[in-house]
Order: sequence, then C-alpha cells, then structure tokens
Amino acid sequence: MIDFRSDTFTRPGPGMLQAMLQAETGDDVFGEDPSINKLEAMMAAYFGKAAALYCPSGTMSNQIAIKVHTLPGDEVVCSHLAHVYIYEGGGIAFNSGAQVHAITGDRGMIRAAQVEAAINPDDVHKARTSLVCLENTSNRGGGCCYDWEEMVKISDVCKANDLALHLDGARLFNALVATGQDPAAYGQLFDSISVCLNKGMGCPMGSVLLGSEAFIKSARRIRKKLGGGLRQAGYMAATGIYAMENNIARLAADHLHAKQLAQALLEKSFVGHMLPVETNILIFEVKGDWTPQLFADYLKKENILVIPISPTQVRIVTHLDITPEMVATTCHIIAEMA
Amino acid sequence: MIDFRSDTFTRPGPGMLQAMLQAETGDDVFGEDPSINKLEAMMAAYFGKAAALYCPSGTMSNQIAIKVHTLPGDEVVCSHLAHVYIYEGGGIAFNSGAQVHAITGDRGMIRAAQVEAAINPDDVHKARTSLVCLENTSNRGGGCCYDWEEMVKISDVCKANDLALHLDGARLFNALVATGQDPAAYGQLFDSISVCLNKGMGCPMGSVLLGSEAFIKSARRIRKKLGGGLRQAGYMAATGIYAMENNIARLAADHLHAKQLAQALLEKSFVGHMLPVETNILIFEVKGDWTPQLFADYLKKENILVIPISPTQVRIVTHLDITPEMVATTCHIIAEMA
Amino acid sequence: MIDFRSDTFTRPGPGMLQAMLQAETGDDVFGEDPSINKLEAMMAAYFGKAAALYCPSGTMSNQIAIKVHTLPGDEVVCSHLAHVYIYEGGGIAFNSGAQVHAITGDRGMIRAAQVEAAINPDDVHKARTSLVCLENTSNRGGGCCYDWEEMVKISDVCKANDLALHLDGARLFNALVATGQDPAAYGQLFDSISVCLNKGMGCPMGSVLLGSEAFIKSARRIRKKLGGGLRQAGYMAATGIYAMENNIARLAADHLHAKQLAQALLEKSFVGHMLPVETNILIFEVKGDWTPQLFADYLKKENILVIPISPTQVRIVTHLDITPEMVATTCHIIAEMA
Amino acid sequence: MIDFRSDTFTRPGPGMLQAMLQAETGDDVFGEDPSINKLEAMMAAYFGKAAALYCPSGTMSNQIAIKVHTLPGDEVVCSHLAHVYIYEGGGIAFNSGAQVHAITGDRGMIRAAQVEAAINPDDVHKARTSLVCLENTSNRGGGCCYDWEEMVKISDVCKANDLALHLDGARLFNALVATGQDPAAYGQLFDSISVCLNKGMGCPMGSVLLGSEAFIKSARRIRKKLGGGLRQAGYMAATGIYAMENNIARLAADHLHAKQLAQALLEKSFVGHMLPVETNILIFEVKGDWTPQLFADYLKKENILVIPISPTQVRIVTHLDITPEMVATTCHIIAEMA
Repeated sequence: MIDFRSDTFTRPGPGMLQAMLQAETGDDVFGEDPSINKLEAMMAAYFGKAAALYCPSGTMSNQIAIKVHTLPGDEVVCSHLAHVYIYEGGGIAFNSGAQVHAITGDRGMIRAAQVEAAINPDDVHKARTSLVCLENTSNRGGGCCYDWEEMVKISDVCKANDLALHLDGARLFNALVATGQDPAAYGQLFDSISVCLNKGMGCPMGSVLLGSEAFIKSARRIRKKLGGGLRQAGYMAATGIYAMENNIARLAADHLHAKQLAQALLEKSFVGHMLPVETNILIFEVKGDWTPQLFADYLKKENILVIPISPTQVRIVTHLDITPEMVATTCHIIAEMA
Repeated sequence: MIDFRSDTFTRPGPGMLQAMLQAETGDDVFGEDPSINKLEAMMAAYFGKAAALYCPSGTMSNQIAIKVHTLPGDEVVCSHLAHVYIYEGGGIAFNSGAQVHAITGDRGMIRAAQVEAAINPDDVHKARTSLVCLENTSNRGGGCCYDWEEMVKISDVCKANDLALHLDGARLFNALVATGQDPAAYGQLFDSISVCLNKGMGCPMGSVLLGSEAFIKSARRIRKKLGGGLRQAGYMAATGIYAMENNIARLAADHLHAKQLAQALLEKSFVGHMLPVETNILIFEVKGDWTPQLFADYLKKENILVIPISPTQVRIVTHLDITPEMVATTCHIIAEMA
Repeated sequence: MIDFRSDTFTRPGPGMLQAMLQAETGDDVFGEDPSINKLEAMMAAYFGKAAALYCPSGTMSNQIAIKVHTLPGDEVVCSHLAHVYIYEGGGIAFNSGAQVHAITGDRGMIRAAQVEAAINPDDVHKARTSLVCLENTSNRGGGCCYDWEEMVKISDVCKANDLALHLDGARLFNALVATGQDPAAYGQLFDSISVCLNKGMGCPMGSVLLGSEAFIKSARRIRKKLGGGLRQAGYMAATGIYAMENNIARLAADHLHAKQLAQALLEKSFVGHMLPVETNILIFEVKGDWTPQLFADYLKKENILVIPISPTQVRIVTHLDITPEMVATTCHIIAEMA
Repeated sequence: MIDFRSDTFTRPGPGMLQAMLQAETGDDVFGEDPSINKLEAMMAAYFGKAAALYCPSGTMSNQIAIKVHTLPGDEVVCSHLAHVYIYEGGGIAFNSGAQVHAITGDRGMIRAAQVEAAINPDDVHKARTSLVCLENTSNRGGGCCYDWEEMVKISDVCKANDLALHLDGARLFNALVATGQDPAAYGQLFDSISVCLNKGMGCPMGSVLLGSEAFIKSARRIRKKLGGGLRQAGYMAATGIYAMENNIARLAADHLHAKQLAQALLEKSFVGHMLPVETNILIFEVKGDWTPQLFADYLKKENILVIPISPTQVRIVTHLDITPEMVATTCHIIAEMA
C-alpha cells in the first residue's frame, strides 16, 4: 500500500525503534523521566521558549493552551478552517467553555487587520476576546505557510490588545523547512506553541507544548485533569529526540514529492483547482466524471490510498514512509488515468 | 426624550401598573404563584405547546433551551448574526460547552439547505450537530420575518436528522402581527420557543420558555442552577398577562411608525442602504459627512436617541412609548437635516 | 393559613406595594434604572463595599461570586450543610466547574483551623483551593450566627493563603439584628457578600451581590451570561430600598416569635433535640409516635404549615407575615398535642 | 534504589521491551492499530464487557467514564478517599461539571446502604444523582478489597434507582489475585470499568476503559475532545498484551512482600496503626520521635524510597521491580531502627 491519507500513518524505522528500546525512563508524573525531560528541554531551546510539556497528542497540546489562555465565556479568534475549531470535536467549547469567532481567511490563514476587526468591545453582551490561534502550516489550506511579516503584525495586534497568541504547529517543521524561518524567532512571537511529533517527524505519538515557565506550570495542571499525565512515556519521547536529530531536514524530500505529484495531477483535465503546493499536502478538486470518492476508490484498486476531504476535493499527503519509487509509481498511474 | 434605542426601554402605563399592584402572588419556587402559573398556562396554549416556564430574561430562556437540547461538545447551527451567538456574552459556550456553527444568512435568516449542509458527519473529529436556532424577527436583520415555508423546511431537516429546533422569539409577537401567522402553529414546528415580554410587549422584565412537559421539567432544573428561580415574581408575571390581553394588536402601530421613519430617512441623500422595514426596527447606513456616531450625537441634541449599531449603521426601534407625535417630530427633524 | 415553611413566602404589605408602584425605572442593562442604582449604592455603603450588583435571586448572587473567585477545576471549601453546596442544584460544579471540599462543621459553621487543614498543597493531583464560603446565619444549622472572632480568624487564614472569602448572607440581616454586629465591618472581612432581599426583608424577589469595583465588573459580565441582566427591574429593587428603610429592626420580632414557639415545643415530650434558636429558624426532632411528616400533616389540618426537613427533623421559620396572634395560636395548638 | 513510592515506577523488563519492539502498529485514530485492537478485544472479553477503549492514563479512563455517565450539574457518589475525587485534579467538576457527594466509608469503601441514603430526591434544589463510583482495590484504604456481596448490593441499588455504576479498577488485578474473584463477573455488575496497565501490570503507560458498545462509542468521542486519541500507540498497547499474558499471577508475590514488610514494621514500637494489608499497599502511622517525613528521610539515606502520605502516615507499595532481596534488605534495615 502507498498510503497518502495522512502523515500520521508513518511507522518508526530501525533507528527510531532502537532509540525507543534504549530510552532511559522514569515516572513523569513525578518529573523523573529523563527522556521526557530531555525532549522538553531540547524543544524549548529550539523554539526559544522557557519551558515545555510533553503531551500525548497535538489535540491535547492545543486544548491545554486554549484552556490556559482563556476563561469560560471568552472568545477565540481563528480561521474557519482551523484544526482547533473543526477537527478537535468541539473541544474549545467542551474544555474551555469558550466561543469561536471564525474568520474566513485565505487557505486557513488570517490577517492582522481581520484579527483587529474581530476584537469585541468591552460590553457585557459580547464575549471577551482573549486569544488568537494561528495554524502553520495550515492543514485545510493545503499545507500553506504563513508569511513571517503577517505573523509579526498579528503578534503586534495581540500585544496591543492584551490578547494571547497561540500557534498550532502540528506541521510547523514543514513550514520551517519550506521557508527557512528561524525556529527560535517563533518563541518571540507566540505566547504558546504546540508542535506535533507524529506527523512529518514520524514518531508513533506525542506532541510538545511550549511557553513560559508560568504558562507550562498551569498547563501541567490542566494536563493532569485531562488525563494526559503519563508515566514511563520516555519510550515515546525518545522517538521525539531521535526525530529532532534526524527527521527535520528530510522533510524537504516530502515537499519535493508533493510537487512531483502535483505536476502529474495538473496535467490531467479532470483535475480542477489545486491549492498552491508549498509543503507536503495537496488539496485539489476533481471534475468531469470523477468525484473525490470515485477517484479514491480507483486509486485504492492500485494500492494507493488518498482521502476525499470534501464533496469536491481530494487530499494527498506525503511523508517519511513515502519513497521516491512510490511517488514515481503514483505519477505513472495518474498519467494513465482517463 | 424620544428614545428609539430599543424596545427594551418601555415603561408600564397605568393599566399595566394596576395589574402589577393587584397581582396575586406566592412562592414560585414551590409552584405557588398564581400569576406565574396563569401566565405560563396562557402562553403554552397560545403557542401550542404543552408547558411553559417563566424566566427573568430572554437571554436566560434561550440559554436554558440550548442547555437542555445539547451536550457539552455539541454544535449549534445558527446565523452569524444570531442574538444567542453574538449578544449573550458567549453564553452558548459558557453555559452549555457547545460550539457555534455560524451560517452567513440573509439578514440573520438561514435556509433549510444551509442547515442541511452544516450537519456534521458521525466522526470523532467533528462536534455532534444537535441543535438549530432561528430568530424571528431577526434583530440584526432589521426586524425581518421568516418565511413560513422556509421554517417548515428547516423543521423537516431537523426532524430528519434528529436535531432539536429552538426559536428565539424575542420579537415573535412582531412577526405574528406583521405576517398574520398562527401562533399555535409555531408550537408544531419548534421543540422550544423563548418569548420576551419586555420588548414590544412593554413589560418591565420577563420571558417565557415553551416546550413539552419533559423539556420544561429539565428547563426548570437548569433555571434553578442559573439562579433564575424567583419567589413572588407574580408581580412581574402579571404585567405579562396584561400585555397578552392588551399589547399584541397594537404592535401594528409600531410597525407603521417604523415605515414612516423609513420614508423620511430614505429621502435624505446621506442615508445609504437600509434593510427592508418589516416590523419595528430600522437599520440603515449613513454616508457622506455623517458617521453613525455623528448622526446619533446630532439627534441627541434634539432629544432623540438612536444607536450606532456598527461602524456604518444606525439602528432605530419603535415601541409602546413612541407616540405618533414623536414620530412626526422626528420625521420633521430628519427632513431638515443637511 | 399560618405559613412557617419559609421566610421566602412573605408578600409585600401596602407600604412596600406603594414603593413598587412609585418606583422610578429604566433599562438596567444600560445602567439607567434609578431604583436599581440607588439600591446598589445603598447596599454597598451599608456593608462597607465599593460596589454592588442587583441579581434576580440569592442563588444567582452566590453562583456569580463563586464563578468570579474560581477557575474550573478549583476547590471550594464550605460546610457540608452549606446552601451553595446542597440546595443550589449542583451549581458550583455546573456554573464554575469547581469541586467542593465539604467540612463537617458545627450546625453549618466551619472553623478557621478546619479551613486551614483543608487547603490543598501545590500538587497537580490536587484541585487548587481558591475559595472559602461561609453562610451566616446558617439555614440548615437552625439559623445560628457565626462568632465574629471566628470569622476574623477565617479571614486571616484566607488572606495568608491567597484564598477568596465569600459570605452567603441570605439571612445576614437576621445575624446583624441578633448579634448587634456592624454591617460595614463585614465588608472588611469578606471579598464578596450576597444578601437576599426576599427572606426576612420581605421583598418579592431579588438579591444584592457586594464586592470591589473590579469584582462587580466581572460579576456583571457573568450575570449577563446567566441571563440575570434585567430591564426595568427597578419595580422590584424599590421594594429592596423600602425594606432597607423599614424591615431590618423588626426582625427582632421574628426572633422573639421563634423563641416563643421553641418554648412551646420544648414542653412536649415528643420533641427531641432542637438546635439552639438564635434567630428565626427552629429545627427540631420529633419522636415517639410522630414523624416529621405526620407532625406536618397534623398541623396542616389546623391551617399551620411547617416543613419536614429530614427524615427526623421539622423546620419552622418565622417572618414578616407571622403575627403575634399567629404565634399564640400555634403555641396553643402545640400545647394541646399529645 | 529500592523504590516503594508507587507501583507506577516500574520499568519494562526484556520480555516486555521485546513485545514493544515487535508490535504491529497503525493509526488508531483511524482504528487501524492491530495491537490496540487486540488489547481492547482481549480486555473486553476478560472482564465480560462488549467493548473497550485504550486510553493514555487511568485518570483519563475514569474521567471519560464519569463524563459519559453524567450531565453537568449531576451528583456523583463515591468515597471521600476516592482517587477520582481527591487525586484527579478536581477533574469531575472540570470535565463533567458534576458535583461529588463524598461518603465517609471504611478505608475508601462505601456500602450499599450509604449509597441508597445518598440519592437525592427529585427536587430542583438538589443535584440529580446519576453515578456511583467504587475503587477496588482502594488506594488510600491501604489496598483493601471490596467484598463481592457488598458490590452486588450496590449494583442492585444502582439498578433500582437508575444510577450508573463505574469501577475505578486502577488496581483491580491486585483485587482479583487477592480474592480469587472472577473478572468476567465484574462486567455484569458495573456499567463501566477502568483498568490501569501501568501499576502492578508494569507497563510504561496506558489504561483500558470497558463498557457496552454504545458506552464505548460515546467514550471514543470524549477521548478525542480531551486529546487522548493516539496514533501508533500500539507500541504501548503491546506491553499491555504482554502484561495480560505474563504479569497477573505474579502479583501474588507483591502481596507476599507487602505482608513481610508489614510484619517487620509492626514489631517496631514507633509504628502505630496500620491499615490491614490485603494486597500490595501498606499505610501506617509513625509515632514517638518519628514523623512520616523523618521516617522517609531516614530510609532515603539507606537508598529506600517511601512516601509520607499524610501528616501522620507513611505509604509503601510493592511491585514488579521489588525483588525478594530488596524486601529482605528493607526488613533488615527496619529491624535495626530505634
């Protein structure tokens, strides 16, 4: 099977498995897991933040951050395509009792002027605006990368209006590799960042939440309440350390694969509008006799898995387990489609 | 002062005050307030529902209904201009832990096809869609009235998809008078209806929530938790009984006044787009040298109060305390504006 | 009927009704109700607090205070008999997501040493202790009054441990009259106080929440979310002003009546343990052939209403609508019981 | 170090590590992790339930179960020593908005008669009682085991009163080994069971929640909202399969070790009241010149770790990583203490 459904489907190779097996571990609820402690310190330094917290999933990292930054009845500003809004089970309302002010942005990216216009006045009828969430890269935006200057402007708006700014960095490493941005500079812009180890990085599970010491202390309390406090999870954290040391630069290969697939697809008349391919995600319309489901079903018979992501769109994601040969095979099969 | 800011500013006249003074009362927490019991029974019968609950405010009626119909983490479908979404302090998230799926509709009114498209699939990533809220008339839509057939279609979509359907009827009496619709038929379409006694009806406070026996039993529990269980509130409920008997038909005068004001305004070149005037609310743009704030400030000097409702729009609301003479005076002053 | 079920059953007399009828009112959501503004200012000054907020009920005042003082997941320390814990529908968990650490105190009153012992350490496993609630007089404690020095000690413990201290003063006026304590001194001990106008004060409805300017600003936001923002509720607030001017000192009569009833009861062999009668509440056991229900049923036939408050106890409450003649009649009937 | 602080401190031995390394895995969010699927099926069958859900921690399993069984504002009946109440960060209130009715039981165990007496009447003032939680073995009760007949009676009370019954089985395997009870019979008594793989079972992390198909479907939704949906967590689940096959019977050794340590301790005059030792936990008072902290500090110098669990009590826990030699050494050191 050539599995393009998501970069969450990767499985560790021998090096990562070895790292897992040799991990030093302890009871992290007592702060005694050396691998988790090492990963947290490594990630905090990398992204220019004072502290970090290992979490079972990116959804939990995001949900904890939103909880720490808001009070019940507050309003969170984000794109109407944001993962935190549409793919976390209504978690913002469930966990934080906060309301979403969804902005229709460009491919899941919102602009500073939109953020400023969305801030509610100090009026009892209105929810208090307290948090802005960005997502970089934007999943539903086809893996697109935020412009650095726009993020700086959004950060300025937040600072001027006493709003917290959180980054859902589920695929932040893809953005870093694609743009050459400085990871440590991110820590200056954002009050908190969640980073996923499972996607492009290839780990079996895990996410890291980054912030100030005080923020992470609060986050640790929330993590316990949600049941995210683990014990000898160092076996999993060790895969994160391995990925930090081995799997970042290679994301460029995933991006190249995505562009190769895009090229093959765009030659087909049944492929309609495709979001610009900036990293490892392709989102495109199929037309004519094809529907997304028919397209997926056809490829499945060829042992290729893709996801119909909307009534008109298909999503393809490249990742660690996709080899150049698999890309070539897929391009070949696409080329032969009518 | 001629106060067009809202129909919430009315004060009882002698007849209503007399009704208040002579009210029979008791401890409603024990179900022993005859005026409240009478009002609840009267309203349930009027709207074709089995049971009713007196609440301190329309916001509480709405919030209780949403709570009873949803579980935390659910999704509520409504217009992006809905009062429950933008003017109740983020209460849907605060009280119910539910998320809003906001639909950009026509003047705050949404369509059956939009509702159907907004229903989430059964997928753990997605919030469970469980409730649709309509608002009739729509406040931010300029007091516009829903088409009956569209509401029937929406009700059908809800029934077919196991969604509850709630009506925010803060100004439902205005819609009834303007359209001639049958109030009892509303009870067949909606699982719950909140009706406000304070606005066009002219009571000092109070709202009634309508639904099935089981719904109202649950609602009564929620009302207690929110602190909405009152004691000898029959003094206030008695004004509701008076309003039901005396203040419904006269809403036609408010609607006429609104149209007269609209006519005066539309003759002015500085008045831009005005939402169609169907009931007692005017929402219009001012342009040229005027801003909504300047316009409101000018009229205030003439002892006329209006509200700048957005950076480009002014809102005027007619009601029980606006006399034909006040309307004539206002039209005259508008006519003389440059 | 001689109704001893609760002091919530009082109905306004001619003076209070007149005050209601003549009330100046306005839209309190816009801060324009003169009667509410006057009552809030009067109450704040009386209890030595900077600001006040009129609420529909004592339950809402308490619930708002708890919400402002806590974060979800916090722990509230109070008596296991506290009204906020056992008679507000689980509101602490429902509205605030906070957990109760219930202390078994003496007649619903807890001691400073117990509060201190109940404070959780700074440990992610434990809920953060953030609030202590007292109730004075204690309803389920038979209307008993807190010792001033003990309250001072509890206040000291709270200040030393960064805990907020809230007073459920549903019957605080009874405590003031019974003990001669200075109401303004209460404002120094407590971060917030809720006072009920409905009980001994005889108003149809209403409560006032007291605190600092910042606290009341937050409380006003929460009140809106709960649906407690009213419009021309000045008709009700005016009864509060009347009660402040006319109904405080007369509570001594209610206390005398309670003692007279206690004396009559304690002469009967079927009356068991009675909580000390300090104000207007009697709670006592009935024994022998009597159960609380049988006792209540017997008196009901004599047109006297009392409440079986537990499987072994009866509660009698005196109030504004209980005359000396009613007390004499009741004592006579009790005297003749076998 | 000889670490008696908790059975959460165990680290996998070579067999379990090998199982981890060889685990077949997939994306569990898509239901494609064979190891997780196998573990869930194995556990469901073992405990006589229809379905199971792998969770990152026992706290999450408990919190999900409580959420599914309750509505906000409900009341949960459990021991005042229950882990769900005092060691999960106020999670019942945080996640479920539910209130705890804490019963002072015998060593953390409550009785059917107490449960029955704790059920609230159908009254808006009272929280609705909807769930009973037991904990077996009881951690703070010194690892004591529930009597089977009492659990049957509690189950009967729950069924008769329409209450759900949840078992916190963090150390259920210890109870099974100590009592010889039938695991599959548990599934008949309880609506849901959470079982921890981390404690006596020796896995690095993980817990399994058991219930009906419908219950687990709801639980899966809640797990996603909390961020407990993992990806290739089969590496961790595989340790659970290994533990089910290898680590249950050997718990008897832990229990023997606990009794040996108890014997050594009870010979010392400075050891006060010790809770009966039924499984792998010792909780005892120290007196005379010793405090729990001094006692722990003394042993720490001897490379032995224990936990001062209250101002008067020490806790010792035996587990997979405690060898007979370690027990002998510890007994010897205790014997020589003054």
